[in-house]
Amino acid sequence: MTTSVKQDLRVQALAARHAGRGLARASSAVKDEALRNIARGLVERQDEIVEANRQDYDSSAESGLSESLLDRLLLTPDRINALAEDVESIAILPDPIGETFDMRTLPNGLQVGKRRVPLGLIGAIYESRPNVTIDISCLCLKSGNAVLLRGGKEAIRSNRLLASIVRDSLVEAGGPGEAVQFVDSTDRALVSEMLEMKGIIDLMVPRGSEDFIRFVDSNASMPVVAGGVGVCHTYVDRSADLDSAVAIAYNAKVQRPSTCNALDTLIVHSAVAHEYLPRIARAWGEKGVEIRCDERAFDLLNGMGGVAPAVESDWGTEFLALVASVKVVDNMDEALAHIETHGSGHSEAILTEDYSAAQRFLDEVDAAAVFVNASTRFTDGGQFGLGAEVGISTQKMHARGPMGLREMTSYKWIILGRGHVRP
Amino acid sequence: MTTSVKQDLRVQALAARHAGRGLARASSAVKDEALRNIARGLVERQDEIVEANRQDYDSSAESGLSESLLDRLLLTPDRINALAEDVESIAILPDPIGETFDMRTLPNGLQVGKRRVPLGLIGAIYESRPNVTIDISCLCLKSGNAVLLRGGKEAIRSNRLLASIVRDSLVEAGGPGEAVQFVDSTDRALVSEMLEMKGIIDLMVPRGSEDFIRFVDSNASMPVVAGGVGVCHTYVDRSADLDSAVAIAYNAKVQRPSTCNALDTLIVHSAVAHEYLPRIARAWGEKGVEIRCDERAFDLLNGMGGVAPAVESDWGTEFLALVASVKVVDNMDEALAHIETHGSGHSEAILTEDYSAAQRFLDEVDAAAVFVNASTRFTDGGQFGLGAEVGISTQKMHARGPMGLREMTSYKWIILGRGHVRP
Repeated sequence: MTTSVKQDLRVQALAARHAGRGLARASSAVKDEALRNIARGLVERQDEIVEANRQDYDSSAESGLSESLLDRLLLTPDRINALAEDVESIAILPDPIGETFDMRTLPNGLQVGKRRVPLGLIGAIYESRPNVTIDISCLCLKSGNAVLLRGGKEAIRSNRLLASIVRDSLVEAGGPGEAVQFVDSTDRALVSEMLEMKGIIDLMVPRGSEDFIRFVDSNASMPVVAGGVGVCHTYVDRSADLDSAVAIAYNAKVQRPSTCNALDTLIVHSAVAHEYLPRIARAWGEKGVEIRCDERAFDLLNGMGGVAPAVESDWGTEFLALVASVKVVDNMDEALAHIETHGSGHSEAILTEDYSAAQRFLDEVDAAAVFVNASTRFTDGGQFGLGAEVGISTQKMHARGPMGLREMTSYKWIILGRGHVRP
Repeated sequence: MTTSVKQDLRVQALAARHAGRGLARASSAVKDEALRNIARGLVERQDEIVEANRQDYDSSAESGLSESLLDRLLLTPDRINALAEDVESIAILPDPIGETFDMRTLPNGLQVGKRRVPLGLIGAIYESRPNVTIDISCLCLKSGNAVLLRGGKEAIRSNRLLASIVRDSLVEAGGPGEAVQFVDSTDRALVSEMLEMKGIIDLMVPRGSEDFIRFVDSNASMPVVAGGVGVCHTYVDRSADLDSAVAIAYNAKVQRPSTCNALDTLIVHSAVAHEYLPRIARAWGEKGVEIRCDERAFDLLNGMGGVAPAVESDWGTEFLALVASVKVVDNMDEALAHIETHGSGHSEAILTEDYSAAQRFLDEVDAAAVFVNASTRFTDGGQFGLGAEVGISTQKMHARGPMGLREMTSYKWIILGRGHVRP
């Protein structure tokens, strides 16, 4: 990489950061108008977007991008309209910035509280899906954060156009367009350069494959929202309502198996395994779920369609597909130990009618989301009532679980005195 | 460093982490009893502590440790009693763990909320002051976090004894003593080893010199509470009540000049500089404050005691001593620009009777604590009503400003269903 390309990137980042000061103070009216402009721009300039995207698609197809990545890359009129609707829905969310909270008057009369402020400059590094350009920049815009966007080379024409729509829309609303910067280069070395910009970029948001996210998380000098691997367990306790347990485990596995909050491993208490396992296996079987069984589960299910013995790598694996591993345990200790060893701290559920079992599971399982009698598929910003979501954090610092607009903020303490001095 | 020393460190860290699971679930009663045991142990075993500390002191004096570091190292009966009182005061603070908040029932009947949990394992790396051993381990204990303590070699006998008092006290109260681990080695390479333990150590808390903290912050693979440099400005607006402004700037500079929240630079509006500057200079002069002036301030103060022209390095410097730089501005824009350029994002104050000026300062200054008409010396966990404090964060992620017990926690989402599946 030439020094000048590095230099350009730094200039862009500093420009975004500087303009971000203006965006941080922009009124909700300006930010929401910008968002509505983006939604309108997406619809009005749909032909242009489809054309830019077609060029990306064709050259990526030529260079041999896989079928599934090509599908992620594709923007159809329907997908663009859906994107516009998502932007409209961000516009109507409450503005997190400026909220003053925890305000108290201390015994000495000093008023002390917190005011919510943006984080500063968000770095977004992402692969293939051009909708991330809109998605992340709109979340940043609403939360008053500047953003430096770095998409993949396969989508560069689409991303370039989408980013310009965002900037134009922000300027049109009277906001600082410079707060949204698009890195218009396919030089892969720029990614490493961005990862070193601690003190300039406040938070890094990677989107892409698990390996890619891990790479960013390991190499970034600044904090990262590492949306996490979800190895999700559902434990069917001896006291579970079995009808409900069939419905929940079915939903958690098949409703959308490609997501991080889908069920990976089903753990069943031995007292109910003989009755429960054939029922869930039948339900799953109708959807073609592959079932990888430990020895006891295999004894109960052997001969049913899709059933096979588990191998060691079937525990602690995020399948992201119609595959589940199944384990039989004699008590809750075994279930908890298995989850502690193999879980990824994402979403874990117990299905039980036993009050103490539910409480113990809530207390002892260390995960971003712990469920009683519900499908793990609910771990989602929209489902939890946060509106939009930046990602799902499996870290404990800053924010854990679904990250909405509020999780894209910090606060400052504000202290109002009347001549107060410290004794 | 031999592989086995590294191995030992890893074993200790994993032991702390494992025992931490028990501490995370320990009742407030157990944790508070442990804290009271520690306070009692400090008083009862005072002679032993003083003797261990004397050995540290003597060998450090012999090896040429500086006067000021020797003073930090010293534990006198008075200091030990004060330490015991601090521990008692942590015992009576509310327990942050287990608090359930933001609990709501969603339209589909799912109950969704958050429960406060510990972060996990805290790494503490610190220099000279052995009281940090007690300080950090008590804050960790109360917030349910395990801790791996690594003090400086100059205090190793003191630290070893203090850590054993903490462990004994925790065990005596029925808690998991292994959750507090003391690294009993002076091998400096262990520090680097600790800094690489991402995934095992959840948060690193460095204590020591600015250079040391910067080293830890730059090299740690995990998040760091980098208690920050405080370059603190106080801006005296044209509308300030000048009597109050003298009292506040005096307090901010002289009440305890060695602290991060003490005044470094005084910025004065030109409309009041001729009247205000000689008054504050006289007040400061009585305490021997050195005053480093920009050209206009120098014109007004030239000839008074301790007054000298400023050099470039007097702006943006944390003096930690009876030194202040003084600048005259013609408007608030200049004051804000100076603070943006030279401030460290710690504590900044405006002294004004003008409502709009106060509001603008609160809006535009980007710092952990922004004051109106009060001394920046109030930036402190105790003063802000947080009880104890782990440090003052100048970062925006996780926690900003004084970090109390609550800031040593994370949360997990808890979701209570009645057979809920995602449509």
